[in-house]
Amino acid sequence: MASMLTLLMVFLLLSLYTFSLVSSHQHHPLDPLTPSEFTLVQTIVKKSYPTPNHNLTFQYIGLDEPDKPTILSWLSNPDSTTPPRRALVTIRLKKESHDLIVDLTTSSLVSDNVYLGHGYPLLTFDEQDAASALPETYEPFIKSIEKRRLNLSDVLCTTYTAGWYGEVESKRVLNLQCYYKEGTINFYLRPVEGILLVVDLDEMKIVEYYDRSIAPVPKAQGTDYRASMQKPPFGPHPNGATFGQPDGPGFKIDGHNISWANWIFHLGFDQRVGPIISLASVYDVEKQTNRRVLYRGFISELFVPYMDPTEDWYYKTFFDCGEFGFGQSAVSLQPFTDCPANAVFRDAYYVGQDGVPVKISNALCIFERYAGNIMWRHTESEISDEVIREVRAEVSLVVRMVAVVGNYDYIIDWEFKPDGTIKLGVGLTGVLEVKGVTYTHTDEIREDVHGTLLANNTIGIYHDHFLTYYLDLDVDGEANSFVKNNLETIRTTNQSSPRKSYWTVVSETAKTEEEARIQLGLNQLELIVVNPNKKTKLGNNVGYRLIPGSVAHPLLSYDDYPQIRGAFTNNNVWVTPYNKSEKWAGGAFVDQSRGEDTLAVWSLRNREIENKDIVLWYTIGFHHVPSQDEFPVMPTLSGGFELRPNNFFDSNPVLKTRAPSVVPGPNCTTQG
Amino acid sequence: MASMLTLLMVFLLLSLYTFSLVSSHQHHPLDPLTPSEFTLVQTIVKKSYPTPNHNLTFQYIGLDEPDKPTILSWLSNPDSTTPPRRALVTIRLKKESHDLIVDLTTSSLVSDNVYLGHGYPLLTFDEQDAASALPETYEPFIKSIEKRRLNLSDVLCTTYTAGWYGEVESKRVLNLQCYYKEGTINFYLRPVEGILLVVDLDEMKIVEYYDRSIAPVPKAQGTDYRASMQKPPFGPHPNGATFGQPDGPGFKIDGHNISWANWIFHLGFDQRVGPIISLASVYDVEKQTNRRVLYRGFISELFVPYMDPTEDWYYKTFFDCGEFGFGQSAVSLQPFTDCPANAVFRDAYYVGQDGVPVKISNALCIFERYAGNIMWRHTESEISDEVIREVRAEVSLVVRMVAVVGNYDYIIDWEFKPDGTIKLGVGLTGVLEVKGVTYTHTDEIREDVHGTLLANNTIGIYHDHFLTYYLDLDVDGEANSFVKNNLETIRTTNQSSPRKSYWTVVSETAKTEEEARIQLGLNQLELIVVNPNKKTKLGNNVGYRLIPGSVAHPLLSYDDYPQIRGAFTNNNVWVTPYNKSEKWAGGAFVDQSRGEDTLAVWSLRNREIENKDIVLWYTIGFHHVPSQDEFPVMPTLSGGFELRPNNFFDSNPVLKTRAPSVVPGPNCTTQG
Repeated sequence: MASMLTLLMVFLLLSLYTFSLVSSHQHHPLDPLTPSEFTLVQTIVKKSYPTPNHNLTFQYIGLDEPDKPTILSWLSNPDSTTPPRRALVTIRLKKESHDLIVDLTTSSLVSDNVYLGHGYPLLTFDEQDAASALPETYEPFIKSIEKRRLNLSDVLCTTYTAGWYGEVESKRVLNLQCYYKEGTINFYLRPVEGILLVVDLDEMKIVEYYDRSIAPVPKAQGTDYRASMQKPPFGPHPNGATFGQPDGPGFKIDGHNISWANWIFHLGFDQRVGPIISLASVYDVEKQTNRRVLYRGFISELFVPYMDPTEDWYYKTFFDCGEFGFGQSAVSLQPFTDCPANAVFRDAYYVGQDGVPVKISNALCIFERYAGNIMWRHTESEISDEVIREVRAEVSLVVRMVAVVGNYDYIIDWEFKPDGTIKLGVGLTGVLEVKGVTYTHTDEIREDVHGTLLANNTIGIYHDHFLTYYLDLDVDGEANSFVKNNLETIRTTNQSSPRKSYWTVVSETAKTEEEARIQLGLNQLELIVVNPNKKTKLGNNVGYRLIPGSVAHPLLSYDDYPQIRGAFTNNNVWVTPYNKSEKWAGGAFVDQSRGEDTLAVWSLRNREIENKDIVLWYTIGFHHVPSQDEFPVMPTLSGGFELRPNNFFDSNPVLKTRAPSVVPGPNCTTQG
Repeated sequence: MASMLTLLMVFLLLSLYTFSLVSSHQHHPLDPLTPSEFTLVQTIVKKSYPTPNHNLTFQYIGLDEPDKPTILSWLSNPDSTTPPRRALVTIRLKKESHDLIVDLTTSSLVSDNVYLGHGYPLLTFDEQDAASALPETYEPFIKSIEKRRLNLSDVLCTTYTAGWYGEVESKRVLNLQCYYKEGTINFYLRPVEGILLVVDLDEMKIVEYYDRSIAPVPKAQGTDYRASMQKPPFGPHPNGATFGQPDGPGFKIDGHNISWANWIFHLGFDQRVGPIISLASVYDVEKQTNRRVLYRGFISELFVPYMDPTEDWYYKTFFDCGEFGFGQSAVSLQPFTDCPANAVFRDAYYVGQDGVPVKISNALCIFERYAGNIMWRHTESEISDEVIREVRAEVSLVVRMVAVVGNYDYIIDWEFKPDGTIKLGVGLTGVLEVKGVTYTHTDEIREDVHGTLLANNTIGIYHDHFLTYYLDLDVDGEANSFVKNNLETIRTTNQSSPRKSYWTVVSETAKTEEEARIQLGLNQLELIVVNPNKKTKLGNNVGYRLIPGSVAHPLLSYDDYPQIRGAFTNNNVWVTPYNKSEKWAGGAFVDQSRGEDTLAVWSLRNREIENKDIVLWYTIGFHHVPSQDEFPVMPTLSGGFELRPNNFFDSNPVLKTRAPSVVPGPNCTTQG
């Protein structure tokens, strides 16, 4: 009897614990939708459209985040009622795209709008799989493969968005290009050139077929990157490394809220854009309060145009968020290699075409980084009889996702530093997109092949990567201004100075969106988001500075179709007034879009942005000329940018940090 | 008897061991001078000038490295005679600068040239100390301090190079500015403004004295950065971190040769420029051979102009290598914070004014870095029934020096990656240079104060940091070319393409120095040093690409005196033909130089650089507008650039690397 009671108590306690965990998880209004919420959406939507399932497809389900004032008022009074949970749903039904809003609190369909503009929603994996399977039973294709003396069973076709090239009428189509997987898993390096298939996604059938040229299929040899397939000689072999934390991890996760050192933020996830950082605040030790920095930040769009204008390649100008879903392209991270031993992993969910939630295990990882860097230091030896040396090692917190969009792997890091800096890291790796050609030596090449000869019969095509970040900074509150600190040369006029010149800061607050469009590299300037209503004790505007990373300007003509669609990259920096509907720089319906709903278009309204709730858009870009060193898999090319406090704190916020106990590892030998 | 024999044998073995160690250490012709070699130089020089010691001062002693052909021929036949050891010595004697060459093998003075040009050699710490001590017994100064109601014993003066401002005649002088150390060790934040002293270094006396204005001395409160002096509230407190290597360190040090993974290089040290990386080669697994990358690389000059043109500040335009000695400014690194637990430390030596070698303990550290980064990866899920995931974590090797030039701390990293990349990191920390003013709030400021109000009565003055790297790349051999790959927009003319534009690479090999002067940011281009005589099997030129970091252009007028002296920063990139005498971008005698012997002048000869042994000069720059968050000590601001293989390897050089065993740490918990 006693043991029964004990068991019961344990059960009750466990239930209580589970409940409190769940309730805690459920309570933040910015939490991504849970699997059961996905299922609820599915149920509600299917109830509204009791048609056979195959006619209705779910293209996207995401949180319809509550209005910003609602969130802020809820935050200021956490005991108040949680704002209603609503989902933003995009479906395809009878060749039409619908934007639905589903209220999860009341289990009801709030609105249902048929989208009549140009462009189509996110592609689902299911429809891409279905399209990819069409060629294997398509007679003309089978003949083309036979003509090339290839085995059909080793041919694999993958999907490419078709873009928009001035067509007046358009259907929802996908292009297919095919590869040969015989002898390698790295089929991307064995393109079967000359064949282009166009699939009508609504009909799910091949509607156009081209077999216009033949090129050799590059050999399998040397393409496989699996360790198990490598042959000697091996190397190089760096020794192993281990990272540990004697006092345990320094961060806490409560639901989707993460707190670490002086940072607290909410980590969401969206099937379109991936990780979303919300409500990032930094604790000000002197003011003894959390101070707001970033209301919401994510990669809004990723534009990847290839530079081969020829008939089978011209269309390759991809938008990885709006077309393929950067979030649903997240892959499971491998412990110890994708993320270090001290990482904690989180799963993520996206909706399958049938409305069923799909889990990505370990889609995100969170870890503390100690890279051997120095947070601050000084050695003072000018004072007699003592050498003063104060050094603080730097530990930071990283949130990571890896998204694999076809051949390319993107490593996306959000790094939080105790000094208040947020560093946004981008790593490019994976497999290059290549074209099959006859050439086996550069001497044979007499034309522009639009790329680099990487292996026999293999050209790595020139391309760009533009990652456009949405950064709704709320520096100490919503009302912010965007300040351009131009560094300008002044000629001295005062004869008393032996100097002829110096530079000074000419500060300009952007009043309108137009004044905040910046092409970097032309001028020497600092870009700062300030709160004009909050000053330091000394009177400086509190702010955060954007320290740009790798700067690349688009090189496509402004009037070229892909650049019209990707016009949000025309400037490296834009600022817009906050508008809940303006989240996705390339527009909501990006697939085959015509550039009518991009950041560049919104910005034309030239709204006022001074002392308003503003959003900073920053594009980090890479022009990529492939190199043989990147074949058959590419060593990571890294870039990044920073948001760094700028008179945000009255003084160095890490002055009074404890010198972290960076202690010897288990096998830490010191050579003599 | 037996025990005596044993002891003798042990002794002999030990002697042998010691001898072999020494001989191994002594044998590389690029090794920095040893303490005994410094002493030998002293003896030889003093023998030549048997004057009383105080008349002869040693300003610089460094290795006179053997001619490059000599080194290369010695390398190709290591059994051949080691090239003779010679030292480059700069002395001051009877108000003249002498450049001596001392042969250490024959213990003889090879040459003795009196330098008759403008400018003076490196400053010694001894003469700076002597100059700094002059004011305390200088009556006018004592009166000035009394007038300010300050305690003389708390006043500390430090030395500032005077620069050149068009004077026709010049003496070897140093300026002094004074600070108040009462109540803080961070005296740099308590300037005593209005007093300027000029010291004649040859006479070692004050020759000019100005007391022209009085400003409040900023308070001590809040300036001390020592942990022991901080008052609550404390924080933030990241948890500790540990790094270890279960298989031990992966690098080997033999004398000054360091080998790690696929890298081997020689680590030298020079009192003027700090660490020198020589003969860096990377092992090519496929070719089974070491391939040359960098013959010699170091920071050639560091130009730090301040932007206050007023009478007591205008002269502050420093050249940290040529004036203060960046190498002799290296400080002892603190284990666990300056460098991680797995670091190995190395001492360095420079010459004291009296010719006696001075040791800097732990001046360099070498460590393997595992920052949780990914070397390469790909997840492949398009192949049915299997998900392929291959990931390699990145471990790299870092060589670090921290140089503290007065108030500023520079963290200088050379990072070697297994993929062949060399990453050059720069961290700026330490204490800002400030000016005392009457202001305690920005509202009171009605003039250009040339900086940011950082604390009461404290302006952090605008300034720049330009670090000019000397990079004698020998990509697979000496004869190299500099290629500008311009990315140019092409309008499509072929009506068959739906595209209107694309970009392509228009490659241009710089024939002369003029064609290799680059101001970055204006065009989209890739900069590559290639070996035009070595091609990959496919016919691509083997090369290394410069991936620039933080780009800053000088903003001083070209005709302004400091910029004439710092004209080597007028371009971000220069290429010169290798010339043993052209090492120091600002010239050999930089103190009070007139810009007659800079990289900009050498380059005017417009020599041919195609298919020659060439040197790449790259300047990484930072414009610095101080911010309150950087007071009283500055969180590190980081920058860097990369040299990355570009068709150097026939394929990814880390494809066949062993997946490093990144194992859990001792207390590595994984949250659920």
